[in-house]
Amino acid sequence: MTTPLRLGIAGLGTVGVGIVRIVQKHRPLLATRAGCPVEIVAVSARSKTKNRDVDLSKYDWEDDPVTLARRDDIDVFVEVMGGHEGPAKDATEAAIAAGKDVGSANKALLAIHGQAVAEAAETAGRVIRFEAAVAGGIPVVKSLTEGLAGNEITRVMGVMNGSCNYILTRMEDAGLSYEAVFDEANQLGFLEADPELDVGGIDAGHKLALLSSIAFGTQVDFDAVELEGIGSVTIEDIHQAADMGYKIKLLGVAQMTGRGLEQRMSPCLVPDTSPLGQLAGGTNMVVLEGDAVTQVVLRGPGAGEGPTASAVMGDVMDIARGLRVSTFGQPANTLRKARAARAAVPAPYYLRMQLIDKPGALAKVAHEDTSAPVLIVTHKTTRTALEEALADFKATGVVASDPVAIRIEAV
Amino acid sequence: MTTPLRLGIAGLGTVGVGIVRIVQKHRPLLATRAGCPVEIVAVSARSKTKNRDVDLSKYDWEDDPVTLARRDDIDVFVEVMGGHEGPAKDATEAAIAAGKDVGSANKALLAIHGQAVAEAAETAGRVIRFEAAVAGGIPVVKSLTEGLAGNEITRVMGVMNGSCNYILTRMEDAGLSYEAVFDEANQLGFLEADPELDVGGIDAGHKLALLSSIAFGTQVDFDAVELEGIGSVTIEDIHQAADMGYKIKLLGVAQMTGRGLEQRMSPCLVPDTSPLGQLAGGTNMVVLEGDAVTQVVLRGPGAGEGPTASAVMGDVMDIARGLRVSTFGQPANTLRKARAARAAVPAPYYLRMQLIDKPGALAKVAHEDTSAPVLIVTHKTTRTALEEALADFKATGVVASDPVAIRIEAV
Repeated sequence: MTTPLRLGIAGLGTVGVGIVRIVQKHRPLLATRAGCPVEIVAVSARSKTKNRDVDLSKYDWEDDPVTLARRDDIDVFVEVMGGHEGPAKDATEAAIAAGKDVGSANKALLAIHGQAVAEAAETAGRVIRFEAAVAGGIPVVKSLTEGLAGNEITRVMGVMNGSCNYILTRMEDAGLSYEAVFDEANQLGFLEADPELDVGGIDAGHKLALLSSIAFGTQVDFDAVELEGIGSVTIEDIHQAADMGYKIKLLGVAQMTGRGLEQRMSPCLVPDTSPLGQLAGGTNMVVLEGDAVTQVVLRGPGAGEGPTASAVMGDVMDIARGLRVSTFGQPANTLRKARAARAAVPAPYYLRMQLIDKPGALAKVAHEDTSAPVLIVTHKTTRTALEEALADFKATGVVASDPVAIRIEAV
Repeated sequence: MTTPLRLGIAGLGTVGVGIVRIVQKHRPLLATRAGCPVEIVAVSARSKTKNRDVDLSKYDWEDDPVTLARRDDIDVFVEVMGGHEGPAKDATEAAIAAGKDVGSANKALLAIHGQAVAEAAETAGRVIRFEAAVAGGIPVVKSLTEGLAGNEITRVMGVMNGSCNYILTRMEDAGLSYEAVFDEANQLGFLEADPELDVGGIDAGHKLALLSSIAFGTQVDFDAVELEGIGSVTIEDIHQAADMGYKIKLLGVAQMTGRGLEQRMSPCLVPDTSPLGQLAGGTNMVVLEGDAVTQVVLRGPGAGEGPTASAVMGDVMDIARGLRVSTFGQPANTLRKARAARAAVPAPYYLRMQLIDKPGALAKVAHEDTSAPVLIVTHKTTRTALEEALADFKATGVVASDPVAIRIEAV
């Protein structure tokens, strides 16, 4: 056996502890597969005294992750703290500057500062890998960057926030309102401290932005993701969609169009017989489409100690085995700035609106109510054209409230 | 740009032509991602004059793949001829001996001679990669070997022969007999020249043996795969299974048990709501289970020009990027010889038998027929125990013909 690969782990929450467990449990297995022992040298976290139910006594402790990142005796800096500014960013930058490779689970940091981090890593001759940042235990970054490297990628889609998928599935199964299930999920600890990261689609949007960059050779651009959360999805919409053979999912879609790169993370209707439609609970699914491979669908746990630690360890093993792929699959200085194409690809839309029953509006359809619900599935149209049409329609005064419009995605 | 990676392609059937198309179509994309141009230098196939609808005029031609494999001006030998003996084997061995890396789609060669080939490659300091040999365009070898390298793998399952899945799906959809759909598939060109490779489970068994080796760190052992084809599956069984909420699939399962390594490729009942149960037509699906990741499911096209060429190109790009992982994920000399555990893991079985209506057998259940069909779902049992029980039962003389027993797999 050769020189060990030495890890410094910053962050001892669920994921960090999961990594410690794998390294301790599978010493011989990892060494045989990696060709060298994989060892933890030092760790860092906010609280040194917290009981984490795992033996940390053999590792050095650092209060400051930046100090950890700079230690001479680590080869790989494992960043599982989270947060796109502050200690996580400082420590990642320090690790690269100190000549360490980095394994990161930090989707926010990479979605916002990915280009700069990738450039710094490549200048320093180091790699930064982030399998755990996207879709938990699913090896989707690897599949896209490496397995499908012979393809021009045509579209990437995914349900990449387990909490949102749990909420939408639970609403349908229990016939409960969004608000009721949101509270339930919050109490069960399924949501981030700031739940808007989940239900606002931000967390999933970070993941989509990372996959987009790899897929299309573009600089990661989270700001260009059209974000729409699930807060406006009602149980009525879920029921209506079900009657029409659809499920509502918080779906991310990225594709290169003639007008630029379209990145959307929003509730969509998908056929209930499709793999995406059948995805229940907290599971994640990513669909990768390329000109040669046609379509590959990957499904697995999107979060949790074991799955996320599994993804980080995949990166660590790659580094141990000498894999040196560029952060986003090609040198950072070759990544193009993509023009953002908002809502460029047309699709049919599901529309639900409440029409006021005055002469000329509903005629006699709604016999007793003063307003009546109307459902429409449009022909293929763009979001912009749809919104213009709806604005015109609202100006007629027959619409009782803002119409609900949900895209029907061809999956 | 640096020195190009130079390919020699042996075999210009569907897959070989697909590779040529990708290399010609995506020159800049591949070069940017690989860090060097990817070029074809020379090709070889049985017929030089056959029209393949692709421009080969810029490549040298070799009649003999062994000569191609030894050319000084190639770096990677791409073997997409097929066949586990003869030219494919000779040329692969010659390539390794001549210091070439190898990208192979040859599941039979690797399932039968994989250990020897891996040892030779490692002795020569070369890599042999075979993503295209298992489940077509699905990056399953990569996901298992690299993405899940931090896991102890607990089970690998898969529907890995698209032709068999097509036949079983089509039987159910059209209510046709096995024989009728077999003839149809054969006429459509869906089956190998020797159809027994498909319907006998041999092709899928090769793939399972390859995944087993990676998953469990064992020497690939195709002879230890319990093989049972789909030829005995009747439309009645498919209908009965459907009534009970199951689909019948040709399912491969590999798992390490206390008694040794169990590898089975046989028709199984799986719940019709499971991802495997919902897999229709020629699509493949592989389920990877590990102690940390729990379960990852990969789905995609199992064959065809584009998908298989995509997989080969993934390997080529890995080689271009300098990835040097051992053939089966760990050095060949560390792979253990596994004890074969035949049918060790108990499961419930679906039993269908025709009972003769004589006193003591069916009593008065079958009023008018001289025999009556009986369906039984057993408690969990092993195949061995089940067969003993059935033999005893047959000895009573009440069974009109050999009972049908199909395992119900927990997926």
